[in-house]
Amino acid sequence: MKWKTAVIGFGNVSQGLVRILASKKEMLKEKYGLDFQLMAISDPVKGSVYDKNGLDLAKIVELLERTGNIKGYPTGVKNLDSIKTIKETDTNLIVETTPTNVKTGEPGLTHMKTALQSKKSVVTTNKGPIALAYPELKKLAEENGVYIRFEGTVLSGTPSLNLALEALAGCSISKVQGIVNGTTNFILTKMEEGKAYEDALKEAQELGYAETDPTADVEGWDAAVKTVIMANVVMGGNVTIGDIHRKGITGIALEDVRKAKENNKRIKLIAEVVKEGDKINVSVSPKEVPLTHPLANVMNAINALTFTTDHLGDITIIGPGAGRVETGQALLSDILALNKLFRSS
Amino acid sequence: MKWKTAVIGFGNVSQGLVRILASKKEMLKEKYGLDFQLMAISDPVKGSVYDKNGLDLAKIVELLERTGNIKGYPTGVKNLDSIKTIKETDTNLIVETTPTNVKTGEPGLTHMKTALQSKKSVVTTNKGPIALAYPELKKLAEENGVYIRFEGTVLSGTPSLNLALEALAGCSISKVQGIVNGTTNFILTKMEEGKAYEDALKEAQELGYAETDPTADVEGWDAAVKTVIMANVVMGGNVTIGDIHRKGITGIALEDVRKAKENNKRIKLIAEVVKEGDKINVSVSPKEVPLTHPLANVMNAINALTFTTDHLGDITIIGPGAGRVETGQALLSDILALNKLFRSS
Repeated sequence: MKWKTAVIGFGNVSQGLVRILASKKEMLKEKYGLDFQLMAISDPVKGSVYDKNGLDLAKIVELLERTGNIKGYPTGVKNLDSIKTIKETDTNLIVETTPTNVKTGEPGLTHMKTALQSKKSVVTTNKGPIALAYPELKKLAEENGVYIRFEGTVLSGTPSLNLALEALAGCSISKVQGIVNGTTNFILTKMEEGKAYEDALKEAQELGYAETDPTADVEGWDAAVKTVIMANVVMGGNVTIGDIHRKGITGIALEDVRKAKENNKRIKLIAEVVKEGDKINVSVSPKEVPLTHPLANVMNAINALTFTTDHLGDITIIGPGAGRVETGQALLSDILALNKLFRSS
Repeated sequence: MKWKTAVIGFGNVSQGLVRILASKKEMLKEKYGLDFQLMAISDPVKGSVYDKNGLDLAKIVELLERTGNIKGYPTGVKNLDSIKTIKETDTNLIVETTPTNVKTGEPGLTHMKTALQSKKSVVTTNKGPIALAYPELKKLAEENGVYIRFEGTVLSGTPSLNLALEALAGCSISKVQGIVNGTTNFILTKMEEGKAYEDALKEAQELGYAETDPTADVEGWDAAVKTVIMANVVMGGNVTIGDIHRKGITGIALEDVRKAKENNKRIKLIAEVVKEGDKINVSVSPKEVPLTHPLANVMNAINALTFTTDHLGDITIIGPGAGRVETGQALLSDILALNKLFRSS
């Protein structure tokens, strides 16, 4: 099956994907049988182009590097909006990577629904729509005989959702605990090295880990959104962000970090989903984790998840949680998983 | 597709699988669409039975618990040998779990070849045949339009090979490092707690982690076999056990462990596969691992692997490396992966 693809939202993440595809197209064809053709890109800032004969990946990368956008692409139809690009182009796969909105899910949610209703599969790293409407999107995909995959919504390209759903298939998972926000983990690491919270935050901002307004990270909102996704996707829950017992790291003092260490513990911002009978409890809060636990030793901006299972006990995965190529890899792994399903048919 | 299955070799691991299937049959059907029917078991000690109408999983488990074998199974044909069970029963899936022989691969290797030539897929935890003949077995499976899967040959049910090949699809892996032998990791953990090597080994033997003759574990042979599998399966190599630079832990003194710790390091028996250009270097040896590395904090009988990738940097997975249910889970995850491939067709 040839994956005729439209990219909706052409920021860092889908640029990461396009760069990977441009450099690995031959290898992906040979090793995984991936037949990929980029047909369209639609982005209100970077530019929109659709060519029914396909776009040249190398040319897109070259344009991005030279001009920072794709407005100068030499062929094709220009300036189709996102909905027209999804509905009216000769495509069967939509890569949805518009900015996340965790309150309404828009515009991503409408993009995804439109794609699925048009019988086009979706891969995305956009957390908002998945956190808000996973059951609905899943149903829509099934009804239309297509797929929606979103590995990159948690831990970027580090296998997390696919690990739980596929590699751990057959296990019952009773608990997921993890470090799912790199910014706060970086700040806590620097505090352990002796920096005050404000200084550690400043360093995180200088390195580009934290936004000018760091609220979403330090108050645990970003972690909470990912916790909702894990609860609903991995544990079959039906929780919303309002169900999360959420506490950020702004109340943590250097003294707390020091004291924990004296007791052979480390303070980590822990996202947690626990199944108790039919009930699913979800929280994000700073916890003192014993140094003997794998999560305690995850430092700097690295993320990790521990799944507690019936057959295997604890399984921990550790890897990056953000980054252009890292999140582009999440999209790629989803496309390759789709390809495997269709290839065997 | 209905998986009509014969189990060849009915020791702990396939008993673990049968117990899981007996208790989760309904859930596996509902959640993964798994249609599984146990048709035959062949084991020279535990007994052999084939019933063309299928065997009753609950009855098998009950018999095992009551008599330790399946000789009293009430119906079916008794005493078919392994080759006849593979060739002459109405089956399409062979679970091969006879004892590992790393010198000849037998009898597992002949079982697997016979199954594949009979156009029956194979799932196995038997390291010998995979370490000795993976390229040949893979080719045979492809030629016959069937599959061979063997997640449990490394790290039992902890996703390792499937993690590298499927969840990390699209990444190039340049290095795999890991703790792939629980016995030696347990001994090294006890030595850090102050026990001399001999006492730590004795404790491992008492707990059933180490054999009476501990050579295969403590001299690194078990780790070396797994390293061959990783090199050939994950890195596309063509190495044999003779290519491994192998050193065990018998030369490690308490003093070495103490000194490493003073330098914020821990001695671990590290299996390593490194790709340098077209060359693949393989080794098993005790290494001083900095405490900041995830592998340094893997204690007792737990195993772990770190994959160094182009898109994601280091990805580490930590989990059990042995156990009846843990390795039974490896077989189950392979069966579910097969089912997914065929289900989508």
